Formats: sequence, C-alpha cells, structure tokens
Amino acid sequence: MILPKLILTDIDGVWTDGGMYYDNTGNEFKRYNTSDSAGVLFCKLLEIPVGIITGEKNNIVQNRAKKLGIDILFMGVKNKLQLVEELCLKYNISISEVAYIGDDINDILVLKKVGISGCPANAPSYVKKHCSMILDKEGGSGVFREFVEKMLGEEYLEKALKFYFESLEEFKQ
Amino acid sequence: MILPKLILTDIDGVWTDGGMYYDNTGNEFKRYNTSDSAGVLFCKLLEIPVGIITGEKNNIVQNRAKKLGIDILFMGVKNKLQLVEELCLKYNISISEVAYIGDDINDILVLKKVGISGCPANAPSYVKKHCSMILDKEGGSGVFREFVEKMLGEEYLEKALKFYFESLEEFKQ
Amino acid sequence: MILPKLILTDIDGVWTDGGMYYDNTGNEFKRYNTSDSAGVLFCKLLEIPVGIITGEKNNIVQNRAKKLGIDILFMGVKNKLQLVEELCLKYNISISEVAYIGDDINDILVLKKVGISGCPANAPSYVKKHCSMILDKEGGSGVFREFVEKMLGEEYLEKALKFYFESLEEFKQ
Amino acid sequence: MILPKLILTDIDGVWTDGGMYYDNTGNEFKRYNTSDSAGVLFCKLLEIPVGIITGEKNNIVQNRAKKLGIDILFMGVKNKLQLVEELCLKYNISISEVAYIGDDINDILVLKKVGISGCPANAPSYVKKHCSMILDKEGGSGVFREFVEKMLGEEYLEKALKFYFESLEEFKQ
Repeated sequence: MILPKLILTDIDGVWTDGGMYYDNTGNEFKRYNTSDSAGVLFCKLLEIPVGIITGEKNNIVQNRAKKLGIDILFMGVKNKLQLVEELCLKYNISISEVAYIGDDINDILVLKKVGISGCPANAPSYVKKHCSMILDKEGGSGVFREFVEKMLGEEYLEKALKFYFESLEEFKQ
Repeated sequence: MILPKLILTDIDGVWTDGGMYYDNTGNEFKRYNTSDSAGVLFCKLLEIPVGIITGEKNNIVQNRAKKLGIDILFMGVKNKLQLVEELCLKYNISISEVAYIGDDINDILVLKKVGISGCPANAPSYVKKHCSMILDKEGGSGVFREFVEKMLGEEYLEKALKFYFESLEEFKQ
Repeated sequence: MILPKLILTDIDGVWTDGGMYYDNTGNEFKRYNTSDSAGVLFCKLLEIPVGIITGEKNNIVQNRAKKLGIDILFMGVKNKLQLVEELCLKYNISISEVAYIGDDINDILVLKKVGISGCPANAPSYVKKHCSMILDKEGGSGVFREFVEKMLGEEYLEKALKFYFESLEEFKQ
Repeated sequence: MILPKLILTDIDGVWTDGGMYYDNTGNEFKRYNTSDSAGVLFCKLLEIPVGIITGEKNNIVQNRAKKLGIDILFMGVKNKLQLVEELCLKYNISISEVAYIGDDINDILVLKKVGISGCPANAPSYVKKHCSMILDKEGGSGVFREFVEKMLGEEYLEKALKFYFESLEEFKQ
C-alpha cells in the first residue's frame, strides 16, 4: 500500500467509544485511549502529518491534540468535505492521497472522496459501505492506531519502531 | 411500519448503560453516547417530535436535552403512564401513535399501552415481555438510535440522510 | 428458597465493576448501576432490611446509601465477620438467616458463615468456592439486583412488582 | 516457578484499560481496578517489593501508589530499561530476578531483558512476542493481580491468603 500524504481523523466514536460524560455543573469529559498515541507517534517518526477534524468544539480535544503534538486541528466543523478539499489545496496534494477515518453521517462525504477511508467495526452500515478499510477494533479501543498500522504495513511499522528505539538513546545519561 | 407521531424515551439504562458516577463532593456524572444524537437528528429532519421522560431530576439530563434541541423534557416523573396520557391529550393523538423506549419497572405501564414499545437487549425479562421491539444494542451503546432507525425503516432513513446532506450545503461558503 | 432476614452487601466489585476513578486533585469517583436500585426497592417493598459493609470509607458510598434509603451502612471495616456477628446479635437473628454478596478476599470469612452467599461471575476462584450462589452478572452490571431476584424467586418477585405498581397509584393526581 | 526478587509494573494499559479521561478544565482522570490492590497486598505479605515505572507524570499515579503503599515509584520515565538496570544495581539483584509487566512500545526493551515478562491479553503482537507470560485478562480488569497470582502459584498464593487471614485477627476487639 502506498503511504498517504496526510492522515485525517474524526474524534468522537473513533478516538472515543462515543461516550460523552456530563456532570451537574456543565463540565464535560471524554475518554481517550493511550493506545492511539503510538499511532500518532508512528506518523511523526515517518513524517506523515496527522490532523483532527471534529464537529464538536471544546477544550478537551484541544488539550489532547496539544499533548500529542498534533498541529492540524479543526473544531466545530459542519461541512468536513469542504475543509478537507481546502487542506488539499493548502498542502498541494490530491484528495486521493489523503487517508481519513470517521464513524458517522458527518464523515460520509469525506469517506467517499479520500484515497483511504477507514471506520471502526461498530460504525453504522451506511457509513461502512463507503469505507475501503473496516477496522477490527471499535471506537475508543485503539482503532486510530490500528488504522495507521494497517496503512504502514509490516515494513513501515518496523521502520517506525526502529526510529523509536533509536530516539530512546538520547534519553540515556 | 407506520411512523409514530411522538417518540418518547427513558434516559438511564437507555441513553446510558445504567452507570451513575458519583464523586466525593456530591457531584454526579452520566455517560451518554454521541451515536444517539443522530437518532434525534433523524426525527427532527422528518418532523417527528421527541421527548424525554425520566424519574431522575438533575442538570445533566437538562443539559443533554438542550444540546440536542429536545423541547419535551419531564424529569422526576413517578407515574410515567399518567404523563404520557396527558401528552396524548395535549398533542391530540392516540397512545397507539406513540413510540416509547424504556428498560425498567417504571417503564412497564407505558410500554404496555403505547403503539410501539422498545427496550434494550439487556432489559430484565419482565420488562422485555411487554415490548414489541427488543433491540440488539444494550443501553448506552446507541440503542435509542437503533430504535429510531428500525421505526424509520430503509425508506425513511434514506429520506432523513438525504435531508441531512442537503442541510450541509448551507454551511458551504 | 426461604427469604433471608437480612441482606448484606459489599460495594466495590459488586455494586461497581471494581473501577476506582481518581483525578489530579485527589477527588475520587465510583460508577454505580441504576439497575441495582430496583434490587434495594424490592427488598423494601418486602420489608427485608438491606445493609452495606465496605472496607473503603468515603462520601461516595454514603451518598449512594442515602439516595437509596439504606440505613445500615458500615464503612472502613477491616474484620467484616466480626461486624456481621454483632449485627446478628443486634437483630436477634442467626447468621444462617443472613444473605451476603461479596467478591474478594475480605469477604471470604463472611461468605463461609452466612446462610446464602453470593458473588459476581468475575470473582476469583478462591472466593467463588465459598459461595452457594455464583451469579451470572459481573460486578457493576446489576449483580446485586440479580442476587436479590434469585433469592426472591418468581413468587416474591411478582409480589414485589405488584406492591410497586400499587405504590404508583399514590402519585396519580 | 522461582519467585522474583522485584516486581515492576507499567501503569496505563496495565492497571488501566488505557482510558485517559480529560475534562474541559484540563483535569485528568484514570480508572484503576480495586482488584489489582490484592495483587500488591499479596506481594507485601510475602515481602516481595513492588515498583511502578511509567512514562506519564501526574498526581493520579502518585496518589494510587501512596494508597496502596508502593514506595518504588518512577514517573515521566523515557528510557525504562536504563532505570531498571539502575534499580538492579541498587537492590543488588540480577535483571533475570526481576518480573515486569507492560503493554506498549516503551516497555519492549525491558520485557526483552527481565526474567519474567508479562503483558495483558490485548497488547499489540509486537509487544506480546517478547513476553514469557501473556495474561488472560486485559488491561484495567485486574491483569496485574493475575500476573502476581500466576507467579506465586498455588503454594505461595495459599501462603499469602493465610498471612492475610491472620492479619485480620488484630482488628478483632
């Protein structure tokens, strides 16, 4: 498989299991999975940019993106396809060179256009049918990492791991 | 299947997996599933009113209802059947035109009377036996959306999706 | 099965799935299941006292007990068997008339002595072997309710439901 | 199996299911499992030291370690192998006498060197292949306890339980 030039991802239902935790004071929580952070790391080590596009807008996503060092972050997006097309212009790439993972109706138009389209195992059938890659994992259980690892394949995954172990050397005293 | 004229829903055990999160300060949390929000959206697009009836009373439900734009919200309800009958009078519809989904003993009297009665896969057997539609999903995993989609059937679901994609046009610049 | 005269229950791993949520400020959360509250209600309707005995000590358990109207609450208990024996003296009953559900090593001595001893499906084997009733549900998924319903049997469960529906009448206007 | 002289453990994905809960204010939560605390207790009763080594750095881990009485705690560790080797020098033991459980890429170098290497059932295949003990449980469901119990074997587990029950005597009045 040819590596994508840009990997974009939805958040709720992909990086989470769709759970939206609310409390009595109006505060909100999300549960991410630390497993996905290695997926982001592999992309960094191989110099593939990763971006987040979500319909929600809150500090939780912003903080998670910051912690993982993800610079491309768009929140409160209604028309995701239009945004993806703009990003392609900006990065001077074709939409067929983009990989996107999403799980719901606001992802469908993008999934139909990108080169590699992924969704979690528990996405609705009318989302799944537009995806070239239906992952084994459900949302929130590391499905973004699975998406990345499947795109990398054995060869590039080994390369990323090699880079990772080399990077550990610098922490030796 | 004929579309209901009003869709009513319980919250705990349906929109949630029954989990009640408490902390040391008396604050309380609930975990909703973003998947259910599309169920509400489909009803809106097809102009079927949706209402929440719950025995609990707190800001969490109120905030969730507000976020999803659900106007019919009754909290702290002891006798749900009486309330449903009053709503039928108000909306000038028969109780056989109402769809209701619930999972526990305080839902039984309503489930026995409405036209379409649904419950999650993990409801007790003495609730299930009064339901015309036992869903595949458990509470908190998108069972309200499954309930709505099964009532809509393929035809109306496609219609709702069509309306949804048309609505995205207005967000184009 | 003869009804017990007192039903006692552990909390963590029974009313919860063992999850202990901690945050950065030292605050703590537990996830109860609303499903268990009907178990407590059935006992009330049939006038069987319910009590909580836990090794933990915090406001979370206290608030949950208060909300469900459970008066017998002992927290921070190291030697549960000694406490149960004292309760038997106080209530003037034999320990063989007590039902107890617990899931871990601090429950073993009690489980070996009471008349009806229950544990969740996911308890360790060295706890299970001392139990007369190994439930189908895991901790936090309504196993206390299952424990109560199995002890009540069909006859008393129907009686409890009948009392419950009668109690709804008083909420009619 | 010969007992290890030191048991070391990763946290995220082992003591938790990998879930990282974030809220709107920047606060963070983790979900531990009370089941694992008995694993720590068994080690204490048998006088085997237990230590935590994690790449994360926050109060949550610190508070959990304190509650369970774990003195060896290293947070924010980049190069875990170097640290483990330093600990071996300090404790005057060989790395082949160390047991370690971890689930991700930052654990691999340690898992390859220690005498007993464990991982949860849901660890990636490129972590599993370096482990001498692939546990049945997933992260966050008591896999640390399972790791300890399997190392103790029936004989030492019974010994630990005997010590535990003896310790309860001191709480009798």
